[in-house]
Amino acid sequence: MFILALNCGSSSAKYQLYDWDNKRVIAKGVVERVGIGDSFIVHEVEGRPTYRDEYECHDHGTAVELIVKTLTASETGVISNMKEISAVGHRVVHGGDKFKRSVRLDADVIKTIEDVQHLAPLHNPPNLAGIRAAYEVLPDVPQVAIFDTAFHQTMPDYAYMYAVPYEWHEHYGVRRYGFHGTSHLYVSKRAASLLGKSSKECNIITMHIGNGVSHTAIKNGVSVDTSMGLTPLEGAIMGTRCGDIDPAIPLFMQGQLDIDYRKMDTILNKKSGMLGISGKYTDRRDILQCNFPDSKDRCRLAIDMEAYRLKKYIGTYYAVLGRLDAIVFTAGVGENAGIIRQKALEGLEDMGIIVDEQKNLSTFSKHGETEISTPESKVKVFVIPTNEELVFVEDVVAILNGTYKDHTEYEYSFLK
Amino acid sequence: MFILALNCGSSSAKYQLYDWDNKRVIAKGVVERVGIGDSFIVHEVEGRPTYRDEYECHDHGTAVELIVKTLTASETGVISNMKEISAVGHRVVHGGDKFKRSVRLDADVIKTIEDVQHLAPLHNPPNLAGIRAAYEVLPDVPQVAIFDTAFHQTMPDYAYMYAVPYEWHEHYGVRRYGFHGTSHLYVSKRAASLLGKSSKECNIITMHIGNGVSHTAIKNGVSVDTSMGLTPLEGAIMGTRCGDIDPAIPLFMQGQLDIDYRKMDTILNKKSGMLGISGKYTDRRDILQCNFPDSKDRCRLAIDMEAYRLKKYIGTYYAVLGRLDAIVFTAGVGENAGIIRQKALEGLEDMGIIVDEQKNLSTFSKHGETEISTPESKVKVFVIPTNEELVFVEDVVAILNGTYKDHTEYEYSFLK
Repeated sequence: MFILALNCGSSSAKYQLYDWDNKRVIAKGVVERVGIGDSFIVHEVEGRPTYRDEYECHDHGTAVELIVKTLTASETGVISNMKEISAVGHRVVHGGDKFKRSVRLDADVIKTIEDVQHLAPLHNPPNLAGIRAAYEVLPDVPQVAIFDTAFHQTMPDYAYMYAVPYEWHEHYGVRRYGFHGTSHLYVSKRAASLLGKSSKECNIITMHIGNGVSHTAIKNGVSVDTSMGLTPLEGAIMGTRCGDIDPAIPLFMQGQLDIDYRKMDTILNKKSGMLGISGKYTDRRDILQCNFPDSKDRCRLAIDMEAYRLKKYIGTYYAVLGRLDAIVFTAGVGENAGIIRQKALEGLEDMGIIVDEQKNLSTFSKHGETEISTPESKVKVFVIPTNEELVFVEDVVAILNGTYKDHTEYEYSFLK
Repeated sequence: MFILALNCGSSSAKYQLYDWDNKRVIAKGVVERVGIGDSFIVHEVEGRPTYRDEYECHDHGTAVELIVKTLTASETGVISNMKEISAVGHRVVHGGDKFKRSVRLDADVIKTIEDVQHLAPLHNPPNLAGIRAAYEVLPDVPQVAIFDTAFHQTMPDYAYMYAVPYEWHEHYGVRRYGFHGTSHLYVSKRAASLLGKSSKECNIITMHIGNGVSHTAIKNGVSVDTSMGLTPLEGAIMGTRCGDIDPAIPLFMQGQLDIDYRKMDTILNKKSGMLGISGKYTDRRDILQCNFPDSKDRCRLAIDMEAYRLKKYIGTYYAVLGRLDAIVFTAGVGENAGIIRQKALEGLEDMGIIVDEQKNLSTFSKHGETEISTPESKVKVFVIPTNEELVFVEDVVAILNGTYKDHTEYEYSFLK
């Protein structure tokens, strides 16, 4: 069974073709510059040279046509016919508070996604364009939406509400939603498995640290709090996003710089975070290696700040959970930046968190799932490479098979 | 020795006359509506009826004249002559990063306070007006500035910096400053005393919960992190202030409501917090007692949210400190709202925090300094009535006497 995963952005369409029976991606790629001219496709198949072709896509419909054509054409294809695609899974960034699980798409679901698109004006409209395009190109194929937000819909109200005028919640949907759901789901269930327990018995803090960064407090298998909020700007310091700041700062700086809220939003999302502090880099490897006299101390500061904030969130969510079984580090930085993990975890021995320093510093993605705490550590600390695609595709397959109710009940294949 | 404490706001001048030899306030009051017409003074002396008089004060100079006249007049006075005032202490809200301690005022100090007034445009200009007025009315009397921010100047850079463009720090002074310094100082030193240790040996979390709310992580006697930031808007949920939110929310809502940053700043400072959630109240007693069917669940939510956020900060600062000796609750709500303390502290037994529920629920300001943790609790929890005035006045006296270097070295009278 082949599942096509689609992730449509404002001017791009990413795709993966997943071979469910063999649990692997057989082709992946992206159409760039959709609707803005000079568009092109980059298509990758293991064991073949990367294929690139220029092809004008004035909208997502043409882009999806191009993707299906590329997947089936004799030169570039991996399947002989589009009928081999059993289902399409769409990544939808924002499900508001309407979707607690992945769902099969129909007119009602599309309408509901439209209803919450003001919450993610840069993401949901292209997601919807991708859905409409897939219906045109593959009209008889079942389609499923997988939401970044769904996993966090188990938060209690006192965790997801903000202390702003209540009407903002009622009329504009202002509340904490959280993102990176499939990643937090995957690594928390894997951690439970490594602990030899059911996820329903485990309290876990998951630290997803990539270019985007979010942390989740998971109690008895479900998300009870998460660091990203109404938008993915809140929480940890990220590559270019500021994370937690005094909410007066954007207003103060709008006054100082005489700029409007749109420009301020762009600065906080694109020019802040590790880039804002270091002045140069978003990639933590560049920051860690920086040796320019002018930038060295700012790079030191950026790393110290990032690690310090991680430590603060570990304490925060420890208090939220009360009892803690494990902490998981995942995603690019979380899996590979041992120095940042070390700084975040040092000095927490009184909380029952003891790290094996050598093991931690020598653990990278390539080592697979690794326990980096010492045998005496009450709280286990794991590095677990994330696998969002697997959750994504498995949700699609389970919905097709009628075996999926929601993530709390479904027995994912990776629980074994 | 009599010390006059002045706290000048945009249209008010609060004062206290402190009798240092007997460690008590002998008169206090406020001039309201300074500079806006219909101004009046309210003057209180223990054992006498409250005195109120209308008197037109077109500026802070006239208000300070009125205060000195009222303190010395035969009918209302408590001293015979203004020469009995040994010094004036001025509360200055924002010292930027220029003042690490209380200082005697001179032209340079005034210039420096002017330099940072853009950071507190509602507070520092009236503070400065009060200073200038006191120089005119009491030209030969030494004057001292006590800053809300000074106690927090010991924070390391990775705690006080924000992940925003670095130039905002260099050119506009954007960083965490923190407030409520004299309160955090007082209760942390009292807690060390109750623990029978020097404050330099103690790690303490202080929870100042009044209408304004801030928490501080104090390591070996000095502030290493605090919840208020560039402004007093950040951190805990307050009476009318939102505290921590996704920084995208003000920008998102500026777009939805089509309002500018000034209006948004007013909403987040004046219409949010407990008032925003409950829709009705800022006073926690009203919220706890609310029984209107329409508001009951929102009041339940407001209390749950406030307590939950307190718990999160306890966890955060536990991780920051690594080892924790005590938690202190202080100020109006912190000293009196046992239910909120209970909800904030429950479920933290794994962190070594065990509260005596009965003792906690029956502890109020009037009981003085009270330990509310159980004897087994590794971390002690105290309710300690704050006494900012004492720190304030003692700094003034010690500067006059030449015995004050800064709060880390000075032996406050209340350490005994």
